[in-house]
Amino acid sequence: MPQAIEGRRLKHWGWGYEDQQPPHEQVVQAAAGIRAHLGFAESEVERPVALADVRLRPPRLEPPAALAEICAADTYQRAAHALGKSYRDVVRGFRGQFDQPPDVVAHPRNEPELSAVLEWAEAEGAAAIPFGGGTSVVGGVEYTGERPSVTVDLRALDRVLEVDATSRAARIQAGATGPRLQEQLREHGLTLRHFPQSFEYSTLGGWIATRAGGHFATLWTHMDDLVESVRALTPRGVWQSRRLPGSGAGPSPDRFLIGSEGTLGVITEAWVRVHEKPGYRASAGIGFDSFEAGAEAVRSLAQSGLHPSNCRLLDAAEAALTRASADGRALLVLGFESADHPLDAWLSRAIELCGDHGGAPAGEPVLRRPQDETGERGEAEGAWRDAFLQAPYARDRLVAAGVISETFETAITWDRFGDFVSTVRSAAQTAVAKACGDGPALVTCRLTHAYPDGAAPYFTVLAPARRGSELEQWGQIKAAASEAIAGAGGTITHHHAVGRDHRPWYDRQRPEPFAAALRAAKAAVDPAGILNPGVLMGEA
Amino acid sequence: MPQAIEGRRLKHWGWGYEDQQPPHEQVVQAAAGIRAHLGFAESEVERPVALADVRLRPPRLEPPAALAEICAADTYQRAAHALGKSYRDVVRGFRGQFDQPPDVVAHPRNEPELSAVLEWAEAEGAAAIPFGGGTSVVGGVEYTGERPSVTVDLRALDRVLEVDATSRAARIQAGATGPRLQEQLREHGLTLRHFPQSFEYSTLGGWIATRAGGHFATLWTHMDDLVESVRALTPRGVWQSRRLPGSGAGPSPDRFLIGSEGTLGVITEAWVRVHEKPGYRASAGIGFDSFEAGAEAVRSLAQSGLHPSNCRLLDAAEAALTRASADGRALLVLGFESADHPLDAWLSRAIELCGDHGGAPAGEPVLRRPQDETGERGEAEGAWRDAFLQAPYARDRLVAAGVISETFETAITWDRFGDFVSTVRSAAQTAVAKACGDGPALVTCRLTHAYPDGAAPYFTVLAPARRGSELEQWGQIKAAASEAIAGAGGTITHHHAVGRDHRPWYDRQRPEPFAAALRAAKAAVDPAGILNPGVLMGEA
Repeated sequence: MPQAIEGRRLKHWGWGYEDQQPPHEQVVQAAAGIRAHLGFAESEVERPVALADVRLRPPRLEPPAALAEICAADTYQRAAHALGKSYRDVVRGFRGQFDQPPDVVAHPRNEPELSAVLEWAEAEGAAAIPFGGGTSVVGGVEYTGERPSVTVDLRALDRVLEVDATSRAARIQAGATGPRLQEQLREHGLTLRHFPQSFEYSTLGGWIATRAGGHFATLWTHMDDLVESVRALTPRGVWQSRRLPGSGAGPSPDRFLIGSEGTLGVITEAWVRVHEKPGYRASAGIGFDSFEAGAEAVRSLAQSGLHPSNCRLLDAAEAALTRASADGRALLVLGFESADHPLDAWLSRAIELCGDHGGAPAGEPVLRRPQDETGERGEAEGAWRDAFLQAPYARDRLVAAGVISETFETAITWDRFGDFVSTVRSAAQTAVAKACGDGPALVTCRLTHAYPDGAAPYFTVLAPARRGSELEQWGQIKAAASEAIAGAGGTITHHHAVGRDHRPWYDRQRPEPFAAALRAAKAAVDPAGILNPGVLMGEA
Repeated sequence: MPQAIEGRRLKHWGWGYEDQQPPHEQVVQAAAGIRAHLGFAESEVERPVALADVRLRPPRLEPPAALAEICAADTYQRAAHALGKSYRDVVRGFRGQFDQPPDVVAHPRNEPELSAVLEWAEAEGAAAIPFGGGTSVVGGVEYTGERPSVTVDLRALDRVLEVDATSRAARIQAGATGPRLQEQLREHGLTLRHFPQSFEYSTLGGWIATRAGGHFATLWTHMDDLVESVRALTPRGVWQSRRLPGSGAGPSPDRFLIGSEGTLGVITEAWVRVHEKPGYRASAGIGFDSFEAGAEAVRSLAQSGLHPSNCRLLDAAEAALTRASADGRALLVLGFESADHPLDAWLSRAIELCGDHGGAPAGEPVLRRPQDETGERGEAEGAWRDAFLQAPYARDRLVAAGVISETFETAITWDRFGDFVSTVRSAAQTAVAKACGDGPALVTCRLTHAYPDGAAPYFTVLAPARRGSELEQWGQIKAAASEAIAGAGGTITHHHAVGRDHRPWYDRQRPEPFAAALRAAKAAVDPAGILNPGVLMGEA
């Protein structure tokens, strides 16, 4: 039954559905292409450990009869819910290393069932780990402590419950994935326009719990900004805020739940702000001689009040890697969208600002009106987005091909931007050389989100793995990059949450009295400490 | 010494400086004009109780020698810090009713002095009440419990400490008033653009602590949105966040401090987002046959992505009252501003949208460029803003003239907007008739802030007072309006905070688990409960 909820089964070790995994021969071909493109020596291509060969420790919990129908403890369910989707997770899944799988996976179909699961967990002294798409890249769904554990998969709660077209808002269950909620909103001519890289699998509740970064490069950069009200079940009652467009009544209850990563309550539904489909679009690719010049243009744009929806600056290596451009220049992927008005004035002023910093359009700008239904998105924008959504699939092949692949992102104010990016890039390069040798390796950077007072740089590392030592190599690179970010004043995460992996740096970053307040707040609503222990606070 | 900090002395009972209070004969003239304008019968004009006639209970605390230099306990200081600036406060101040004045008023000049004051208060078991401009209209600075109390006036901390023109941000001390911080920012060609009605007297720390609503009618509606990082002293250490343009690391520490109204810590400084002076402006006054039609236009504008900086809709009575227009139509005061680009495309599309809802420009739209330094603001915008800043001064005269004057504001989603405004308006009218008789009285409404999913209606009540019974009359109207707002699903405050006056409705509005979390969080950072007890939580 729990499997039936999904229809198609997700891979137990990597990205996407089982039927999306290409045959081994194709992986071998792709791997050769990738390694050649990166300049890495040839290397054997490995195969993932088949589910039939995965061995898990026996479950230490048995659900009560009343919950049996929605609980599973078979190897597929436990393995598929054991890890998130960081490089480290995929390597372990690929190798069949599921050392601490959940003892039981529960699939509640409604709030009473969820409540019963939480009560049972509390009675058993078990950890309860909320699980949406399982796409955490920071150890957010992997419990590593000593208690028995129940992973609570929320994907059965996947409906759009109410649409308020007048207020442009919709009430949506937390377990709805991106495609599920979009297809239901489309019936009303509406769209949420939140497109994180994990869009196909991650869920509304997960986006809210982790402050996911989404589609808009300016203004509404995080899921935070799209939330009108939230409902969550805590072990001590329902946490439900009023639907309000704005309020000044005390510290925002929503903003305290947003980013709580399942430690204060399990989000069951939310009213979110939706949009009409933006029929007007204007986009352009702009080339810059240097990433620094492009960043100055992004600063101008972010401070201009033009509010582009897309304003992503790729350094030359990143542009080449994602095949968005290969002319050795930094590329700004610039886009505006509106359901209301033509965007000519917006785009032309934006191009002018880019010109002030030496930016030159790469190809013709694209202007679309609602009637241009058959038109293509701007070339640079389209190419970049396709590569963006394909990246996590590609990573599965990188693991097979013996390529370490890590991304990390942060945010910093403009006054420190140049030095900061250099420092972090150098630290990553040094760590890569130390962990992977002096051969070819790639550290690229793009700006994903821009603010009047700063920007969010996003780094990608690709380096040759030593088979069997990937986790140590990855750990060294991750720690060095995180140290560099924290030391230079950035945030340990701009939009990938804290989970368990970012704890050492998060603990240093947050104000100590706030940490004390957060721990006390958790104890008030989750006195037994069952909810996602080790995430944000407490021992794992 | 403490007085010397101010230079000019604020009135101990009402709005503005002592030297701004007009002579009694002028008040008599103004009062006659006001009452005639409102259609109220003539009535004697009272005089405020002079400071020399104010009697206060003796102070119950004596500061230690080390703090004597920055502490005061004279009648002026204690009376001037006893109350906020609600109608209820001004009536009591006018009558010399200061039943629970602070025992001591402290004026720390730096963080070590503030720390010492908090330590002393904790040792004495005294309440410590943070005080900026003292312009709270919700009982935010009036301690009403049984402990001795120290009011902590922060206005000596009034400097802009650092300006980062690259990131468009400034580090400013919490006690800086609007004019003080603007004059310091102006030297750098920058402006905060936060103009609450209390702008001349209220302070940055107060704005942050109370989630003050400001200048921008869309996008950055609250002080919340202008804060990059905050520093506060709690009884258990310094709460200081990193300067970050954006972050996804756990629930935002800033968003938990913002709106905490002095209950978690005393804000000492903040990095805030500032702007270049907007040389480009475009504005228009648009008339509508009905408030409802105007509201539909505001909804279109708020959902259009045009982001007007001013989008204030006055009903016909409000437009007449503020002398913005007197033609019996609802008036939309619409404005755009930019430091970057001409706004012709923005304004013309906005006017088109208004036209779709029957709106017609009242006079010529005004378009200004940076070089038009001598030009006036758009007529409607200018007239409205002048009346806006003068309103609190006028209220002092209303008290003398025997006119009850109350404002209250809320926010609601668009789907319920029409019924909501009718319900609240009727409830206020019914309460006014009950409390003040069936004679002439005014209940007006404007929209101050607009969101894609709703708007913030702001109501003004003017009614004849029965001398000596004003507080009962006010209490009846306030309770009825608050009940109507809470019952119909609105927020008890959009931008005037909770304080002590809104507690009954706030307690019902917030999620119960959040209330438990907030209380626990406070106990963690303020275990003795000295900080502003009774505000947001706890007994007064």
